[in-house]
Amino acid sequence: MISVAQARARIVAAMRPTAPEMVGLAEAWGRVAAAGHAARLTQPPADVSAMDGFCLRAADGALGARLSIVGSAPAGHPWSGTVGPGQAVRIFTGSVIPAGADGILIVEDSAEEDEVLEVREAVVAGRHIRRAGQDFAAGDVLVASGTRIGARAVGLLAAGNHPWARVHRRPRVALLATGDEIALPGEPIPAGGIVSSNAHALAALVRAGGGEPVVLPVAADNEAALLAAVEGLSCDLLVTTGGASVGTHDLVQPVLAGRGLRTDFWKIAMRPGKPLMFGVLDGIPMIGLPGNPVSALVCAVLFLLPALSRLQGLPGEGPVESEAVLGADLLANDQRADHLRARLVPGADGVPVATAFSRQDSGMLRLLVEADALILRAPHAPPASAGERVRIIRLDAIGL
Amino acid sequence: MISVAQARARIVAAMRPTAPEMVGLAEAWGRVAAAGHAARLTQPPADVSAMDGFCLRAADGALGARLSIVGSAPAGHPWSGTVGPGQAVRIFTGSVIPAGADGILIVEDSAEEDEVLEVREAVVAGRHIRRAGQDFAAGDVLVASGTRIGARAVGLLAAGNHPWARVHRRPRVALLATGDEIALPGEPIPAGGIVSSNAHALAALVRAGGGEPVVLPVAADNEAALLAAVEGLSCDLLVTTGGASVGTHDLVQPVLAGRGLRTDFWKIAMRPGKPLMFGVLDGIPMIGLPGNPVSALVCAVLFLLPALSRLQGLPGEGPVESEAVLGADLLANDQRADHLRARLVPGADGVPVATAFSRQDSGMLRLLVEADALILRAPHAPPASAGERVRIIRLDAIGL
Repeated sequence: MISVAQARARIVAAMRPTAPEMVGLAEAWGRVAAAGHAARLTQPPADVSAMDGFCLRAADGALGARLSIVGSAPAGHPWSGTVGPGQAVRIFTGSVIPAGADGILIVEDSAEEDEVLEVREAVVAGRHIRRAGQDFAAGDVLVASGTRIGARAVGLLAAGNHPWARVHRRPRVALLATGDEIALPGEPIPAGGIVSSNAHALAALVRAGGGEPVVLPVAADNEAALLAAVEGLSCDLLVTTGGASVGTHDLVQPVLAGRGLRTDFWKIAMRPGKPLMFGVLDGIPMIGLPGNPVSALVCAVLFLLPALSRLQGLPGEGPVESEAVLGADLLANDQRADHLRARLVPGADGVPVATAFSRQDSGMLRLLVEADALILRAPHAPPASAGERVRIIRLDAIGL
Repeated sequence: MISVAQARARIVAAMRPTAPEMVGLAEAWGRVAAAGHAARLTQPPADVSAMDGFCLRAADGALGARLSIVGSAPAGHPWSGTVGPGQAVRIFTGSVIPAGADGILIVEDSAEEDEVLEVREAVVAGRHIRRAGQDFAAGDVLVASGTRIGARAVGLLAAGNHPWARVHRRPRVALLATGDEIALPGEPIPAGGIVSSNAHALAALVRAGGGEPVVLPVAADNEAALLAAVEGLSCDLLVTTGGASVGTHDLVQPVLAGRGLRTDFWKIAMRPGKPLMFGVLDGIPMIGLPGNPVSALVCAVLFLLPALSRLQGLPGEGPVESEAVLGADLLANDQRADHLRARLVPGADGVPVATAFSRQDSGMLRLLVEADALILRAPHAPPASAGERVRIIRLDAIGL
């Protein structure tokens, strides 16, 4: 058995980022930049006003001075003349400052009558002026290669005059649930069988992680069905659920080994979810998740999401960990890293309090849905008492 | 001027949740349930094994006992007989426990030869058996009305045999940028003009918040253009950017007032973004955001996302706040609530350290993109010193 960190490193190392594609800026949100995007213009393009008011020569702007209003420069309609001594031009937020002017009198500090302006507050040269290039200059990198594009970055790409973005293609992740006992929701359920939840839960997670899920038909527990399921695959990653152990009916490994699967590892020192397989089939990386829905989802958080990140050109780091205070004692742990389903409540000092559910049976999907976090327990961790700090993975912020 | 909290409460109170629609389970991720979804079956449907091994009468399972293996029950292929005294049936994870059996001998604790099983570890009645209904019973509410459906809930709906989900329709949010000085990326830029970033940044945010953005053509700063822009609108919320103040060229309010706009308020005691307008036009709620991209995005986080949540049937609470430690001193605040763009670094005790950028000019979109959080400063807040606790809004977790 290998550790969680070793398994993740080996999985991530096998992922090759997808090729770039050009998408319209409106479709760029959530995608990962496949190149640096440099500003195609300077912003602001010239010195502009940050306020509504008047521009003038600052030397003319003493308290009580009177100037003649010689023009108006609404945003988008620059005043083409030069502001001379004793003159003022009406301007607005975003207006280009005309030649000659170096001071702004904001409208609240002014009075005007018959195109004569009175200064009610002394003007300071340069104040309320946004300098050309204050936000960015043409050529500045606005979005670096390998960063996920959020709503703010979409705005910045727009401001830098990019109608298109060069991003990594969404990784296609094929999801193959196996088992004689499972049926998709609404379909006839075999005797003693259950409804399959893994493929669609994982498809949602793949979507949340920026991928494009492809749900394959459920494969029965026999060689022909498994072989048929992997014919003609077109994906960047194959994820199977169930059949990944070594029981009599765990056919995934032996059948696909005969079909060319090179297995890297298939056992991780963790709970829930020991029988996790990783290999390569026809050049396609393949993760074999446990069939148990709780195990499958926890393993997906630990291994599938990092793989998906890497496929998109991100580093493929593990889930974000944070700190919590234990709300109740924990027993010593055995040799397998544990991931205890837990509730969080706000703590007094800004650090949440995490209390593990008393039942940790990996058959209880409903408890996983009710969990706010996983408490991380290292192999051989000693008993821990209420009040001690623990590391957690929050489940609420990752589309789970 | 009204407070941020008052403004948000008035905006949210005016939103009516969208009507329900039925979507395929695969499309339910991220949507808000418009009804409770009860389990349509019991899970597990019968007592099942949690392990691979053998089931038997626990009374027969003393250390060293030998039993005859009389059958096999793979998952999905229940064994229909009754396990008698001295008998064992081979079972697997998920297999239904046949009648008569009440104990499990896991495969690791067994030896077998010629269909004779030897017990290597005494069997405890009930151990390794998942009871019928342990996860949920038919009729149990799996996903409550008004909750956002994450990947785990998709799995739970599947397990409860729901091929479809009843969810609130995605709110349509029309986005109208106004101004003579702006052009969309890649289009000809007027003299002294800039490229419009608001509509597409907000569209991305609407997507992140679960809505469906509709980007309208840019409206020039004149009455005819503004009136044409709001003809034939089909949306749940109209968001304008720019022109919402009261300057000579701020036409949104006067023009739309003549067209029937009922203005609720248009000034909030906050920075960035004082001139924020809220009203109702032809029965459609309308938020008028400032034209400045930083102000527009900050106001969108504070007001548009809560409105969008409410439109989807959620309570419409403000952005999640958390605690941080100040990394540098802050000056006293004036009468407007401030939202300082700041960087976060991990803190020693699990609470991040927030340091405001030295420049807070609302014209600098790039600094907003680089910010990890907004530090909240209440009106008239006294000076604050490095090391003090402050409230922050994290910007990384909301698709921003």
